Amino acid sequence: MARIVMKFGGTSVGDIERIRTVARRVSEEVADGHQVAVVVSAMSGETNRLVDLCRRVAPMHDAREYDVVVSTGEQVTIGLLSMALQDLGVEARSWTGWQIPVRTDGAHGRARIQDIDTTDLIQRLEQGQVAVVAGFQGLGETDHRITTLGRGGSDTSAVALAAALDADRCDIYTDVDGVYTTDPRIVPKARKLARITYEEMLEMASLGAKVLQTRSVEMAMKHGVRVSVRHSWPEYWTVPGTLVCSEDEIVEKELVSGITYSRDEAKVTLQRVSDQPGVAARIFGPLADGNINVDMIVQNVSEDGQSTDLTFTVPTGDLDKAVGLLEACRDDLGFRHLTSDSNVCKVSVIGVGMRSHAGVAQTMFQALAERNINIQVISTSEIKVSVLIAEEYTELAVRALHTAYGLDAA
Amino acid sequence: MARIVMKFGGTSVGDIERIRTVARRVSEEVADGHQVAVVVSAMSGETNRLVDLCRRVAPMHDAREYDVVVSTGEQVTIGLLSMALQDLGVEARSWTGWQIPVRTDGAHGRARIQDIDTTDLIQRLEQGQVAVVAGFQGLGETDHRITTLGRGGSDTSAVALAAALDADRCDIYTDVDGVYTTDPRIVPKARKLARITYEEMLEMASLGAKVLQTRSVEMAMKHGVRVSVRHSWPEYWTVPGTLVCSEDEIVEKELVSGITYSRDEAKVTLQRVSDQPGVAARIFGPLADGNINVDMIVQNVSEDGQSTDLTFTVPTGDLDKAVGLLEACRDDLGFRHLTSDSNVCKVSVIGVGMRSHAGVAQTMFQALAERNINIQVISTSEIKVSVLIAEEYTELAVRALHTAYGLDAA
Repeated sequence: MARIVMKFGGTSVGDIERIRTVARRVSEEVADGHQVAVVVSAMSGETNRLVDLCRRVAPMHDAREYDVVVSTGEQVTIGLLSMALQDLGVEARSWTGWQIPVRTDGAHGRARIQDIDTTDLIQRLEQGQVAVVAGFQGLGETDHRITTLGRGGSDTSAVALAAALDADRCDIYTDVDGVYTTDPRIVPKARKLARITYEEMLEMASLGAKVLQTRSVEMAMKHGVRVSVRHSWPEYWTVPGTLVCSEDEIVEKELVSGITYSRDEAKVTLQRVSDQPGVAARIFGPLADGNINVDMIVQNVSEDGQSTDLTFTVPTGDLDKAVGLLEACRDDLGFRHLTSDSNVCKVSVIGVGMRSHAGVAQTMFQALAERNINIQVISTSEIKVSVLIAEEYTELAVRALHTAYGLDAA
Repeated sequence: MARIVMKFGGTSVGDIERIRTVARRVSEEVADGHQVAVVVSAMSGETNRLVDLCRRVAPMHDAREYDVVVSTGEQVTIGLLSMALQDLGVEARSWTGWQIPVRTDGAHGRARIQDIDTTDLIQRLEQGQVAVVAGFQGLGETDHRITTLGRGGSDTSAVALAAALDADRCDIYTDVDGVYTTDPRIVPKARKLARITYEEMLEMASLGAKVLQTRSVEMAMKHGVRVSVRHSWPEYWTVPGTLVCSEDEIVEKELVSGITYSRDEAKVTLQRVSDQPGVAARIFGPLADGNINVDMIVQNVSEDGQSTDLTFTVPTGDLDKAVGLLEACRDDLGFRHLTSDSNVCKVSVIGVGMRSHAGVAQTMFQALAERNINIQVISTSEIKVSVLIAEEYTELAVRALHTAYGLDAA
């Protein structure tokens, strides 16, 4: 007998039929003798509908009132799923964020969970009652008001609840059956990973493999919650998903676990920037103030020895804004030319095995060179190597790297 | 400066534009220096949508979970109206039932308000903040769960809040501009009443004038809350509505305040019922068990002196069920014939003035006799006389009585 947390997203509870299907899956775990808490999102489309109502009534609306409105989406789902479970003869009750309570800070619309009081919840679980918990919401610390965690927060709710309940595992049911070595739409020979470390999953999540919300992985790593990514469709229920866990739990470590790519990158180059102390701060200051996330940065000494070339990437959607901000202070920053290019792609190789093995980056450069793919920018961390290439080479590069690191399925 | 409660129903907050209109009306009261609490319903159609989801997921659903789902309708409205008020520069915050809290008993789906803790609310009102309160909902007494008051409960929420806040008045904004002497669709000369007593309003409400929910009037009477019925459209904002108040506040009492009618009546006659003690109990027992509300009852001694004829009315929708229940125990009850007629209408004359004036019923009988309208059943209470007539005479009877009691507008 185990204590488990199951999480189902908006698509999995998108209509009455799907809610009934989720209830059946939950009832199987109950029949197996497990203590079960289920965390759910709003029915798909519902959050957008509510957000739209807020925008229409007042474009500059109060975040506290936004939370009052938007949190109703999950509240509807917990009621309906509890009914569906009861209809199957499973004892169940719903829990809103304030009922548990899930205490958060007061940052409405993007609150962070501080503490979950599980006293009542554990008592009910031990009596065999399924707890159906509203994801994405909590109770503000000071003023007794509803808070929400921000988009995708239900993953975080589930992991935080699993940590607080000291659950044996946290199963995230989604619309993929696990984490793959790369995007199967590009590489048909992509393999599903049985296990992946938290660190790798974090790099996968933030680099474009949209499986788990980044904050939920950070929280799982911090509290050592074993997270399993699984498909919510009945035909996959007997198929094991991917377990996200600590490195200790992975016996056969692979050098490289996955290849990711992100087309949401644009490159900006400032030529002939005067090479003085503090110039980087003067350049990136306005971008930070404009809430633009700068990623890869490379600085070269230019030929004359008195100026420098600076290249960096920003999200494609922020390119125009970034160029505008930089042009506005061109005199102050003292650069001669600004060029930009949004037809670029960041391809990354990820693996905790890199820590102890040299030559990983060399394999990457070699494989790309063999296909005549030019590397524009390189950045590395302890467990990944990323390169920026021309967007048109994306598929070719991902396939070449997948083969080069021996990830292709037999 | 006064403390007032304003209540807006589902149609008045049916879309974003109407919510903005409500915010404008509230802001006028604030600008006049009043302390304002606003009670709102779910946006029109929303409660039906939520109820339908519950029915579809499980026809025999748990009333506790039903309340979790259905109470979200009002929660959305309080958030949106608070935003709309803030957008007009009015300080406002939303309050759910559990936040105040509005304590109720545990009868989910039809809970009764027991107590409203106004400590926080009054503090905010005194600071000039508008309280936007979710109607129809509360917090169960024992288990910290959301309750709802049942359909139309927002009127009751508003009156209960006005009582708890010791408000100077409670303005119910609806889709009529007040209480009329009778239905203006039948009698164009119907007059809007400036004032009406609680007792009369109760008779009006339960007899078919669908302006205020019965329980809200009972509560207003019990706590002496002055309730004003007003139209929610801007063109009516300067027009006074109808004040529902105690008899002491009405200086010029009218003999009769209104004429109401209800077509939702069906007549059942049992002929030759054996005239023994306990027979009425044996007849009405099965109907009560079947949750059928029996209204007017008349019993005549029949010619043979050993049996009796019994006539009574039930709601039209319950007629088939009532006939079925009675036929099923015909032998036990011992009646010879059962006849029924749903083409009947109950017309009532209401007025607290009747208490001290004789001849009120006589005026009614006379007016109907002059139009050759046959009276099938008569029932009376301290402040009303009701008659059952053939349905086809409804309009004729209502007009004749309106004129006979001098209610026609000049």
